Amino acid sequence: MTEKYLYSFNEGSKDMRSLLGGKGANLAEMTNIGLPVPFGFTITTEACNRYYRENQTVADDIIEAIYEKMAELEAVTGKTFGSSENPLLVSVRSGSVISMPGMMDTILNLGLNDESTRGLAALTENRRFALDSYRRFIQMFGDVVLEIPKARFDKAFDGQKEARGVKYDVELTAEDLEQVIAAYKKIVKESTGEDFPQDPKAQLVEAVKAVFRSWNNERAILYRKLNGISSSLGTAVNVQSMVFGNMGDTSGTGVAFTRNPADGSKKIFGEFLVNAQGEDVVAGVRTPLGIDKMAESFPEAYKNFVKIADLLERHYKDVQDMEFTIENNKLYMLQTRSGKRTAQAAVKIAVDMVGEGLIDRETAVTRLAPEQIEQLLHPMFAKEELEKAMSIASGLPASPGAACGRIYFTAEEAVAAAQSGEKVLLVREETSPEDLAGMVAAEGILTARGGMTSHAAVVARGMGKCCVAGCSQIRVSEEEKTLVAGEKIFREGDYISLDGSSGRVYEGRLKTVEPEVSGDFAKLMEWADEIRELKIRANADNPRDAAQAVEFGAEGIGLCRTEHMFFEEDRIPAIRRMILADTAKERKEALDVIKPYQKEDFKAIYRVMGDRPVTIRLLDPPLHEFLPSEEEDIRELAEMMDVSYEKLAAKVDELHELNPMLGHRGCRLAVTAPEIAVMQTEAIIGAAIEVSREDGLEIEPEIMIPLVGSEAELAAVKKTVVETADRCLKEAGVKMDYFVGTMIEVPRACAVADEIAREADFFSFGTNDLTQMAFGFSRDDTGKLIEEYVRQGILEDDPFQTLDIGGVGRMMKQAVALGRQTRPKLKLGICGEHGGDPRSIAFCHEIGLNYVSCSPFRVPVARLAAAQAVVARQK
Amino acid sequence: MTEKYLYSFNEGSKDMRSLLGGKGANLAEMTNIGLPVPFGFTITTEACNRYYRENQTVADDIIEAIYEKMAELEAVTGKTFGSSENPLLVSVRSGSVISMPGMMDTILNLGLNDESTRGLAALTENRRFALDSYRRFIQMFGDVVLEIPKARFDKAFDGQKEARGVKYDVELTAEDLEQVIAAYKKIVKESTGEDFPQDPKAQLVEAVKAVFRSWNNERAILYRKLNGISSSLGTAVNVQSMVFGNMGDTSGTGVAFTRNPADGSKKIFGEFLVNAQGEDVVAGVRTPLGIDKMAESFPEAYKNFVKIADLLERHYKDVQDMEFTIENNKLYMLQTRSGKRTAQAAVKIAVDMVGEGLIDRETAVTRLAPEQIEQLLHPMFAKEELEKAMSIASGLPASPGAACGRIYFTAEEAVAAAQSGEKVLLVREETSPEDLAGMVAAEGILTARGGMTSHAAVVARGMGKCCVAGCSQIRVSEEEKTLVAGEKIFREGDYISLDGSSGRVYEGRLKTVEPEVSGDFAKLMEWADEIRELKIRANADNPRDAAQAVEFGAEGIGLCRTEHMFFEEDRIPAIRRMILADTAKERKEALDVIKPYQKEDFKAIYRVMGDRPVTIRLLDPPLHEFLPSEEEDIRELAEMMDVSYEKLAAKVDELHELNPMLGHRGCRLAVTAPEIAVMQTEAIIGAAIEVSREDGLEIEPEIMIPLVGSEAELAAVKKTVVETADRCLKEAGVKMDYFVGTMIEVPRACAVADEIAREADFFSFGTNDLTQMAFGFSRDDTGKLIEEYVRQGILEDDPFQTLDIGGVGRMMKQAVALGRQTRPKLKLGICGEHGGDPRSIAFCHEIGLNYVSCSPFRVPVARLAAAQAVVARQK
Repeated sequence: MTEKYLYSFNEGSKDMRSLLGGKGANLAEMTNIGLPVPFGFTITTEACNRYYRENQTVADDIIEAIYEKMAELEAVTGKTFGSSENPLLVSVRSGSVISMPGMMDTILNLGLNDESTRGLAALTENRRFALDSYRRFIQMFGDVVLEIPKARFDKAFDGQKEARGVKYDVELTAEDLEQVIAAYKKIVKESTGEDFPQDPKAQLVEAVKAVFRSWNNERAILYRKLNGISSSLGTAVNVQSMVFGNMGDTSGTGVAFTRNPADGSKKIFGEFLVNAQGEDVVAGVRTPLGIDKMAESFPEAYKNFVKIADLLERHYKDVQDMEFTIENNKLYMLQTRSGKRTAQAAVKIAVDMVGEGLIDRETAVTRLAPEQIEQLLHPMFAKEELEKAMSIASGLPASPGAACGRIYFTAEEAVAAAQSGEKVLLVREETSPEDLAGMVAAEGILTARGGMTSHAAVVARGMGKCCVAGCSQIRVSEEEKTLVAGEKIFREGDYISLDGSSGRVYEGRLKTVEPEVSGDFAKLMEWADEIRELKIRANADNPRDAAQAVEFGAEGIGLCRTEHMFFEEDRIPAIRRMILADTAKERKEALDVIKPYQKEDFKAIYRVMGDRPVTIRLLDPPLHEFLPSEEEDIRELAEMMDVSYEKLAAKVDELHELNPMLGHRGCRLAVTAPEIAVMQTEAIIGAAIEVSREDGLEIEPEIMIPLVGSEAELAAVKKTVVETADRCLKEAGVKMDYFVGTMIEVPRACAVADEIAREADFFSFGTNDLTQMAFGFSRDDTGKLIEEYVRQGILEDDPFQTLDIGGVGRMMKQAVALGRQTRPKLKLGICGEHGGDPRSIAFCHEIGLNYVSCSPFRVPVARLAAAQAVVARQK
Repeated sequence: MTEKYLYSFNEGSKDMRSLLGGKGANLAEMTNIGLPVPFGFTITTEACNRYYRENQTVADDIIEAIYEKMAELEAVTGKTFGSSENPLLVSVRSGSVISMPGMMDTILNLGLNDESTRGLAALTENRRFALDSYRRFIQMFGDVVLEIPKARFDKAFDGQKEARGVKYDVELTAEDLEQVIAAYKKIVKESTGEDFPQDPKAQLVEAVKAVFRSWNNERAILYRKLNGISSSLGTAVNVQSMVFGNMGDTSGTGVAFTRNPADGSKKIFGEFLVNAQGEDVVAGVRTPLGIDKMAESFPEAYKNFVKIADLLERHYKDVQDMEFTIENNKLYMLQTRSGKRTAQAAVKIAVDMVGEGLIDRETAVTRLAPEQIEQLLHPMFAKEELEKAMSIASGLPASPGAACGRIYFTAEEAVAAAQSGEKVLLVREETSPEDLAGMVAAEGILTARGGMTSHAAVVARGMGKCCVAGCSQIRVSEEEKTLVAGEKIFREGDYISLDGSSGRVYEGRLKTVEPEVSGDFAKLMEWADEIRELKIRANADNPRDAAQAVEFGAEGIGLCRTEHMFFEEDRIPAIRRMILADTAKERKEALDVIKPYQKEDFKAIYRVMGDRPVTIRLLDPPLHEFLPSEEEDIRELAEMMDVSYEKLAAKVDELHELNPMLGHRGCRLAVTAPEIAVMQTEAIIGAAIEVSREDGLEIEPEIMIPLVGSEAELAAVKKTVVETADRCLKEAGVKMDYFVGTMIEVPRACAVADEIAREADFFSFGTNDLTQMAFGFSRDDTGKLIEEYVRQGILEDDPFQTLDIGGVGRMMKQAVALGRQTRPKLKLGICGEHGGDPRSIAFCHEIGLNYVSCSPFRVPVARLAAAQAVVARQK
C-alpha cells in the first residue's frame, strides 16, 4: 500500500498532529464533533518532507491525490472548481506541528479566475465583492506563489485610489476594481513573463508548493531557531472551502480566546470585524471591536459561538484560540488551537482549571512553559515612579512587563543598537514578521496600530516581552525617525518607558522593582515540588546569591565556586604573592592571609543555607588568570607588589598557556600545589565546625574536586583533602560527616567513571567543560562558528544552551551507568549551565541524576521543568 | 586450605615466575632438571604483597613456614642452622617477576654468629675464611637490615688496614679480622642500641623483611617507573644454602652468557674470579678474567659449566645469563636468566636460533624489542669519540640519532647555510611550524624548551632526524645569536654535536658511524611481515618521506597532511591572500594559485607510492597559523602584501583564538569556507587522474576529513568533496574509485561513531588530539605537568607517547564497536603518533584495527610490534 498523504477533515483527529499539523488536526477534530467547519482536507507533513527529499518537487501521486480530494470537496459542497456558475473556492494554509503564527504563507480565494469571478458575482449577486475577492487573490498569489514584491501591487492599488480621488478601499467601485485587476495581471505578466494562471488546478498545485517552500523561508527558520523547533517536522497544507466574512454587513470575521490570555480571567476575550476577511483582523488595518459587541451585530451567531467556545475548552481541556467567520449570519469555525497566554495568565488558568475539575495537578504543571517563569520574575515599574511619571500616551496592554530603552524605528537599527550594548525599544507603525529580529533585540515593543491579537501583540507575548500595541495616540514616522505624542517629539535614541501591563507609555527612564510572586504561582510551584523527583540546587558563590536561591526554592548549593572569592580586591594581592612565592613557606604565608576570608565566606553561606547541602569546589582556574598579561599592567603591578618587573614578567611568561582551557588548572593545581587545597579544606571544614557549633546546625560539607580525569588523580587530591579535614576535625575534637566528590567534565572521566566512582562520594557533571572538550569547541572562540552550524542545520541547537543529548548526553549516560555499577548509591548531579535548561533537565531526570544545580534565577524554572519531566515520562 | 607462601626449589618450575620471581623460578627449574644448585626455598611474591597489605609485618603463619623450610634444608644439607659444628649458612636474595638487576638487596652468609663462625672455621679448617665471612655478613646485615650507613663499616675496616699498614683486604690476618668484627659489633650496638643478633632464626626473619622493604626503596621505585613495571607485582625472597667461592684458590665465582650479548656470536661469554664471592665480580673491585681462562684454573668445572650452559640454552631456548660458584673445585649454579643484549645481538641470535631449530619464527620476532630497532636505523657517535668527548649540557632524548654541525639560530639562516653546503644544526628556544624549512635543512635540532612531544620533537621524529629538546641547561638568544651552556658561549657557525639517543650535547665535532642493517635484520623483518595482521602505513607529507617510508616497508600512506605544503615559501603568500580575501572570488583566485602546486605534490607522492593506498587529509590547522602575530611581523607582511597594516592586523585579531586547539580548524574550515576543500579535492582527484593516465597506475585516493564530531558535520563536508570529485571525474571522462573517511579525534566522535559511520568509508583515529581532548591536556602546555603526574604515579606513562589504553583506549574500543555495528567492513586505522608505539600497536591489533600509520622511521618498529601482537595473542 502506498502511503496516505491526504486526509479529508472527517478522516483525521486531534491526535494526528504530527501528520496533519496543529491546524489540520484541530479542523478534523472540530469536524468530527459536529461543529460548523467548512469542509476540506489536509496534505500531510510527510508530503512536505517528501517534497524536500525529492529536490523540491511534488510527486505525481500526490498531485493525483489532491485532484481526487478536490472532486470529493466538489461533491460535498455541491460547487465546482473553476465553475462560472457555482464556483468552489478554497483557502490554502500552512499548518505546522508546532504553531508558528504568521511565519508561513496563506492564500485565500483560490479557484478564482476570470470565469469563476463572474460566476461568484452572479451567485452572490455582488459583483464588487467578487471582483474584490479576485484582486485580493491575484495579489496574494502574486506575492506568495509568484514571489512578486507586494509593493508593486500596493502601488497599483493606491494609484487607482489616487486616480479616483478616494481615501478608503471600500470607496472603490466594481469598475475601479476591474481596472485594478487588469493592472495586477499586467504586473504578473511583466514579472513572470506569463499570464496569471487561469487553471484552478494549476493554481492549487503551485499554492501547495509555495506553502511547502514557506517552511524554509528566512523568518520561519529564525522562528524555529528561537523556539527550538526542529526543521525536520515539515508543514502540512490545509485546503478548505472558502466562506466569506466580507459579503456585506451580514458577514464578519473574528478571533477569540475562551479566557483572557493576558491575565487569565475566565471570560471570552476577542475581537471581530464586520464585513471583513480574517487577514484584516490580524493585519491591524482596521481597529476591530470587542467580542461582546458581536452579541449586538450577530445575536444568533454570538450565542452559538459562546456555546461552541465552551464546548471546545471542555473538549480540549485548555484555553482555545479560535478563528471564525460569519457568512450571511451563519457561523463557521475556521480554526481552534491552544491559546498562547502570558505567564501570569498561564498560572491563573492552570490553577483555576484544577479548581474547576477540568484538569489534574500533573496536567496543571505542564501548562506553564518553564521559560515563561522568567516573565513572572521580571521587573515592574516601581509604584512611586509611576505616580510621578508622565504618561505621554496609552495603548493596548498587549504583553505585560516593564521596559525602558532608547527608541529605534526599524528592526535593523534596533538590532545594531542592541549589539552595541544599548537597551532598545522597537517603535513601529505596526510590526510584521520581517521585524522579528528587531523584536528579539528589543526590551519592549510599541506599535501605533493593531489590536491585542495583532502580530506585535502575539509575538511579544510569546517571547515574554513587554508590548504596548495599537497606541493610536502616537504618530510614528519611520522615514523621519520620529515618534510624536501630542506636542512632544521623540527622536531615534531618545529614552521612553513602556508598561505592558497597563498599556501606558512614559517619557524618559522609570525605575523598576522586583515583581510580586502571586499566590497562584506559589501554588503551582508547590504542585511541581510534589511531583518532581529531581532535587533542585543552585550555583551560588556568596551569601547574597545563596539567599536568593533559597528564596526561589533551592534545596542546596550544587556549585560554590571558590575562585570568585579569590578575585576580590582585598584578597587578590595575597593570591598574587602566593603565585610568585619561591618557597613553600612563602606560599603558605600568602595562603594564610586568604584563609580567614575564605572561612568567613563559607560561614556566611552555611548560615544562609542552614541544613541544606552545600557543595564547594576547590580552586579551578589556571593561576595566570590572577595576573595581568599586558606589559603595562605587569609593570604597574610589579611596582605595587614591590617585586622586579623581570620577575613578574617571567612568572607571567612561565604561566602563559596556548590553550588555557586544556592547561594547568582544576585538580591539577591541587596536585602540583597541594597547599592551596589544604588551605581551602581548612577553611571549608573550619567554617563548618564553627557554624555547627555557633548555630547548632548539622553541616556536612561536600568538597568537590574539579577536572578529574582518572581515579589516581582524584585519589591523590582526595588524600590531601581527607588528611587535612581529618586533622582539622581531630584538632577541634569534633565528629562531622563530610563528602568528597568530583566534577565529571573531562571526557576521559565519563569513559572511566566506574574507576573514578571508587574514590568519589558524588559526581557532578560539569557540562560546560564537558561540552567544550567533547566537541572540541572552545566557548570563547566558536560562538560564531556554532551560529553558522545551527544555521546550516549541522547542529540542532547551541550545545552550550541545550545539552547535546545525542553526544554529550550519551557520554553522561555511560558515566552514570559505570559510576552506579561501582557504587549503586552514588549521588549524581549536574552543575553546568544546562542545569537550568528545561530540555536538559528532562534528560537529567531520564538518566537518573539526583539533582540539577543552576543559577538562582533559574531555580523556579528547574523546579517546574523537573516536574514536567516526571509527567512527560508518565505519559 | 591456607595459601602456600613457600616453595622448596624442587617444588617450583620456570612457569611459576609470577609467584616465585624470575630468580626463584629458574632456581627451581635448574634443580628439577638436575643441575647442581645449592638447595633452598622461595618465599613468594604473594607473601610480599601480604607483608604490605598487613602494614609491613610478616604474618606468624609465614614465619612458621619459614622455620619448617629451614628444618627441611637442614635435613637435605645435613647441616644445622647456627651450629658450632656443621653450621648451615644461607643467602637471602630478592627476586622479582621482572628482572630489576641490582635494585634490591641481598644478604650472604646468614646464619653466622660467634658460635657458628667457630664451627665454620673448624669445619673448613680455615679460620681466616670463617672470620672474613662473618665480618662480611655483619657488614651486609648492618647495611641492609639494620640500615646503618655502610660508610661506618668501611671506615672501621679501612682503619684496621691502615693500623696494620696493609693495602689489600687479603693481607689482613684472622686476628685483624677479629678486631674488625669487634669494631663492627660496636657500630651495631651504638647505632641500634642492641647487640648484633646472634639468633640465626631472628637474623633470617629480619633479612626477609628487609628484602620485602627493599621492593619499595627509592631506586627500585625509580627503576620500575623507568621500565614500566607495576609496583603491585612484589618481590619473592630466595633463601639458599651458601656455597663459597672464597674458600681459597680451589674456589671461585663468575657470570657468563651463553652467547655474546654485544654482537650475538655463538660463543660463551663471561668473566670469573678466583677466591671470591659473587658480589666481587659485579662490584668491579677486582678485574675478572675472561671465561675461557677458567678452563685453565678449573678444567673439570669448566667442562661441566660449558655442558650446563648449552643445556640451559637449549632448555630455555634463549641466551642465558648465568651466575655460578666453584667451591673446592665443585661447580654450583646460582642463577640463570634470559640475557640482556644489544639490538644487533638480538637480531643475530634470533635468526641463528631459528637456523639451529631452537625456536620458530614466531618466537624469533619476539626476541627484539621494537624500541631497539631505532638503534639499528640511526647513525651513532663512535664509541671511542664519546669516551673522550665533553658533554656541555643534557636535555630530552627527543629523537634518536647523532648529528654534528654548525649552529644557526633561525630557520632562514640554517637554510641559507645548508644551501651553501654546510652541515648545520638548528638551535631554537623552541620551534614552530615556520621553522619547518630550517628543520628540514638541519642535521639535527636543539631546543631549550618543550617536552618529548613538543613541536621540535614530533617533527624531528617524523623526519627521523636527531633532536635534543627541552635542554633547560642552555640559554638561547636568537637576537645575539648565542647559545650559552654554563660558562661556555657558542656563536653562530660554531660546531657542536647532538646525541638524540642520550639527550647529550657535546662541544665540537664528534665522528659518527653509519649503522649496518644486516641481512639478519632484513630476514627478521620479513618473518614479522609474514606473521602480522595489521597493515603498516606511514605518515608522509612529501615524496621524500614517502620514499623513505616505502624503503622501510610501509604499505601505504595513512596520513598525508596538506598544511605543510601550504607553509612552503612559494605558496604561503597565496594562502595569506586567500585568508585576507574579502570576496569568494578573491578567495578562489588565491586558491587557484595554490592548486597546481598541490596537484604536483600529490602527483609526486602518488608516483612514489605506486599502487599503495594514500590517505590525504584536508587542511587542518586554524588559519591564524598562516599569519604572523607580532606587530612588527604584521607590519612587514602588510608592506610585502601591499595591504594596509590595519586590515592585516584586524584579520589577525579576528582570527586570534584563546584556545586554538578547540577553535576554528579541521573540518570546520571546510564548513565555513568550502572553497578550500573544493580546491584540495580538485588537486587530489586531478593528480590521481593524471598519474593514473600517465603511469598506468590504479590510484584510488582516500580523502580524510579531520576533526569531525557528528554525522551532520561529516555529511556537510563530504557533500562538497563528493560533488567536486564527481565533477572532476566527469569532466575528465574517467571512472575512478575514491573513498571519503574521517579522523576520529574528537571525543564526541567516539560516542556517536555508529552515526558517523553512516557517512564514512573509513575511520582513522587521530590519537594525538583525541588524547588532548579526552584528558583535557594541551600538549603545548602540560609537558611539565604530565612529567609530574608520571613522577607521582598518577599517570603510568605520558599518554602522548603510549596510548592511554584504560581511558582513550576505552573510547577507541567503543568507537570501533559502534562503527562496525553500522558498517561491518568499515576500514579502521590510527594515524596519531601512537601508531609507532609498540604497546599502542598491540592494543590497536587487539581492538581490530586494519592498519597503523606512523612516521617513516617508525615503520620497522611498527612492523615488528604488529607481529609481536599476533604472537602475544596466540599465547
